[in-house]
Amino acid sequence: MKDDNKKITKRTDDYSKWYLDVIEASDLIDESPVRGCMVIKPYGYAIWENIQKVLDKQFKDLGVQNAYFPLFIPKSFFEREAEHVEGFAKECAVVTHHRLKLDPTTGKLVPDGLLDEPLIVRPTSETIMYDTFSRWISSYRDLPLMINQWANVVRWEMRTRPFLRSMEFLWQEGHTAHESEKEADDMAMKMVKVYKKFVEEYLGISVLSGVKSESEKFAGAKYTYSIETMTQDIKALQSATSHMLAQNFSKAFNVKFLDKDQKRQFVWQTSWGISTRIIGAMIMAHSDDNGLVVPPKIAPIQVVIVPIWKDDKEKKLVLNKINKIYKDLEKVNVSVKNDDRDLRPGARFFEWEKKGVPLRIEIGPKDVENKSVVFSRRDTGEKMIIDEKNITKEVINILDAIQKNLYDRSSKLMEKNTHIVNSWQEFQDVIERGGFVSAHFCGNKKCEDKIQTATKATSRCFSFDEKEEYGKCIYCGADSKKRAVFAKSY
Amino acid sequence: MKDDNKKITKRTDDYSKWYLDVIEASDLIDESPVRGCMVIKPYGYAIWENIQKVLDKQFKDLGVQNAYFPLFIPKSFFEREAEHVEGFAKECAVVTHHRLKLDPTTGKLVPDGLLDEPLIVRPTSETIMYDTFSRWISSYRDLPLMINQWANVVRWEMRTRPFLRSMEFLWQEGHTAHESEKEADDMAMKMVKVYKKFVEEYLGISVLSGVKSESEKFAGAKYTYSIETMTQDIKALQSATSHMLAQNFSKAFNVKFLDKDQKRQFVWQTSWGISTRIIGAMIMAHSDDNGLVVPPKIAPIQVVIVPIWKDDKEKKLVLNKINKIYKDLEKVNVSVKNDDRDLRPGARFFEWEKKGVPLRIEIGPKDVENKSVVFSRRDTGEKMIIDEKNITKEVINILDAIQKNLYDRSSKLMEKNTHIVNSWQEFQDVIERGGFVSAHFCGNKKCEDKIQTATKATSRCFSFDEKEEYGKCIYCGADSKKRAVFAKSY
Repeated sequence: MKDDNKKITKRTDDYSKWYLDVIEASDLIDESPVRGCMVIKPYGYAIWENIQKVLDKQFKDLGVQNAYFPLFIPKSFFEREAEHVEGFAKECAVVTHHRLKLDPTTGKLVPDGLLDEPLIVRPTSETIMYDTFSRWISSYRDLPLMINQWANVVRWEMRTRPFLRSMEFLWQEGHTAHESEKEADDMAMKMVKVYKKFVEEYLGISVLSGVKSESEKFAGAKYTYSIETMTQDIKALQSATSHMLAQNFSKAFNVKFLDKDQKRQFVWQTSWGISTRIIGAMIMAHSDDNGLVVPPKIAPIQVVIVPIWKDDKEKKLVLNKINKIYKDLEKVNVSVKNDDRDLRPGARFFEWEKKGVPLRIEIGPKDVENKSVVFSRRDTGEKMIIDEKNITKEVINILDAIQKNLYDRSSKLMEKNTHIVNSWQEFQDVIERGGFVSAHFCGNKKCEDKIQTATKATSRCFSFDEKEEYGKCIYCGADSKKRAVFAKSY
Repeated sequence: MKDDNKKITKRTDDYSKWYLDVIEASDLIDESPVRGCMVIKPYGYAIWENIQKVLDKQFKDLGVQNAYFPLFIPKSFFEREAEHVEGFAKECAVVTHHRLKLDPTTGKLVPDGLLDEPLIVRPTSETIMYDTFSRWISSYRDLPLMINQWANVVRWEMRTRPFLRSMEFLWQEGHTAHESEKEADDMAMKMVKVYKKFVEEYLGISVLSGVKSESEKFAGAKYTYSIETMTQDIKALQSATSHMLAQNFSKAFNVKFLDKDQKRQFVWQTSWGISTRIIGAMIMAHSDDNGLVVPPKIAPIQVVIVPIWKDDKEKKLVLNKINKIYKDLEKVNVSVKNDDRDLRPGARFFEWEKKGVPLRIEIGPKDVENKSVVFSRRDTGEKMIIDEKNITKEVINILDAIQKNLYDRSSKLMEKNTHIVNSWQEFQDVIERGGFVSAHFCGNKKCEDKIQTATKATSRCFSFDEKEEYGKCIYCGADSKKRAVFAKSY
């Protein structure tokens, strides 16, 4: 049984434990009996649904269509793109049998009905989708093909952590096919920008975006764009990716089209995804020692009203008042909850604080008398007395202010903890203390491996904001044209 | 490559082939390289999204919350409820390994990393959910617990048919826990009514609902309520089910609560689901020899506008006109598509007819001149000349009329093909000709098996509409208190 009064570990005491405590206290997920799989509880799932709603509309507005592809991928498909299989073979769930039968000696059920070819539970759907695309595409008139899928995927991670790295997770994966290299690159760039804007505007998290190094790119991509967020323990968290696949998969899966000059060509492709991991990024970015903090634009409950009373007469008085407030807020599409449970006010305050509801409205008999209510902001803890005539207007203002404040805090955190270094010694010193470190880097895989071994940091990306600039690789001294951002990461 | 001009087989020639032809012609799904799995194409998926949107809101209005549980079920969980495992063990995908490795002798990838305990890909989630429920529920205050999950499930069916019986399918599964038997029964009944109303109102299909016999109930349920629809080849199609699980699973998974008298009791449970199979029911109910017919309330495209022109001047004229019609219809939330592709009008008509768009608006230069347009109904083929001033109003009227007509046709089909019989000879004669047959039945499993062997028909349900009435079982002559409906079924 869950202990509702369990103290949340302080961030400064043990950041990892704090993260797990916040998740437990805010009722987002539950452990499951299957190692590394999450049970996403209603409150956590409601956040995911809000994320889905916003992104789904944005994708559709771009002309992307939703579809659904099989959960299982034949092993032979998986093997066709060499880098891809190399990247995923070591961590995939393999279905080998199609029934269970009773073993008469042990009385236990054992796998039976061996499959001719094992099936892989999709870790991502490039292979199964592009086999299909090869039948959907015949001419340039069929392009661009822009498909998205909301689905579960499985990657057999050895070390799991809720939201950040789970064996099964939920995501969307977009897959497009284009006539030209330029069009595909534009698409990959467009989508990384969609993710950046979404995470900044809706989740209130500052985003670093750029191109991944060879070591860090997606298995099978020509190059990968990513967005990276900063956690409060000043590590990096890769939060969404957009891949330029070029013709790597179209050649492996024979996805060709007849161009305007009647020539057969391989299509140019992209894929891009964001997953439930982004909820982990949100927790890491905003929450505090009192629990979760959810940005208003994505909060399942934006405002909780907590009436306070001592006797039935007072109860009637305040409940009557909150009903009107509730209805007024619903009218302007604020997601509001009345918590009129017969519990001590403190217990109710505590619960919604842990769950990160952006704004609490307290109202007791004195407030009714004074024709006012008390607002309490989750992000700052600030309390304000608000005239009852202005409640709706002020709720909207303050939700906006909270959204803005969260983003500003996140921006400042990233700004304050991003450092420019110009020597290997400096690099080691600064990276040791954490944060993002901008340094010249040759991009070479071997060099990156050595940097990682020495410092536990990897390159996060060559930032889009960074200008081309001549320099020498921080580690090997080879020529470098651009700085990369390095960090320890989740 | 798909042949866009392929003729659809007539229903009277080969109903099964007609069904497959309609699906292909209307672009709902694609075959997948994984046996028995569907690729749901954008047009088919848009129908599923519309179904989801309506039902999801209805569930939430009832206080049901969405959540997400793991895809994998440990084998030991599966074994805990005896009837349940018996029902599903013979057709489940079993994950036995967690990686692939290169076999150096063959150069092929082979399963590696044997799991201590095999995992079953969920065929349904009672077992994994209720294990979790046992930790979520401690007192009557935690009840009722009402959880829904939109998910993919896998049942290793040997004979598959698109939508109707696929190895992987999409569905929602609702799972509730209650204080009392009565509350759980009320819930199971409430949900079968939600399904019936949804299928009748939105999908325009007449529904028979009732209680399943012992042979036909869900594996692990005390009893099962179902809705059954009739296909145009007058067979039955089970279209959704709602199960009263009683305490079968709460005892197996130790889901207990402290009641108001401080006594520990097992909770009473229900589960209920509707799947992509309902799209098969929709196709089977309404479509015709020209292709798909989609009921307006669920149609991704309710109205298609097809402009007709011969030269650029005419083109400008009609395109100008349709833009206004398009905007007017969008304003009243009609889902409308402008098909101004440079294709022969006949080819465009044909495409949208195959895809079952409820209403087509044709407009050529003559129509612009006459200040009118031509409406063409998909359900009846009827053409009407509509004054351009009345388009929006008439679109709404006619979409309503189509929705109503589809339901009426479906009702008449069921009514005309439901027969009451009172002897075994009569039963055999009538069932041979097809349709629903109402007959006294003892409910006994052995008796039902024999009826099935003799006639290929099974009991569909003891209808809620049927009154209690004393009689003798049509087959064995034992006492019967109620008639059951028998039919050959999909």
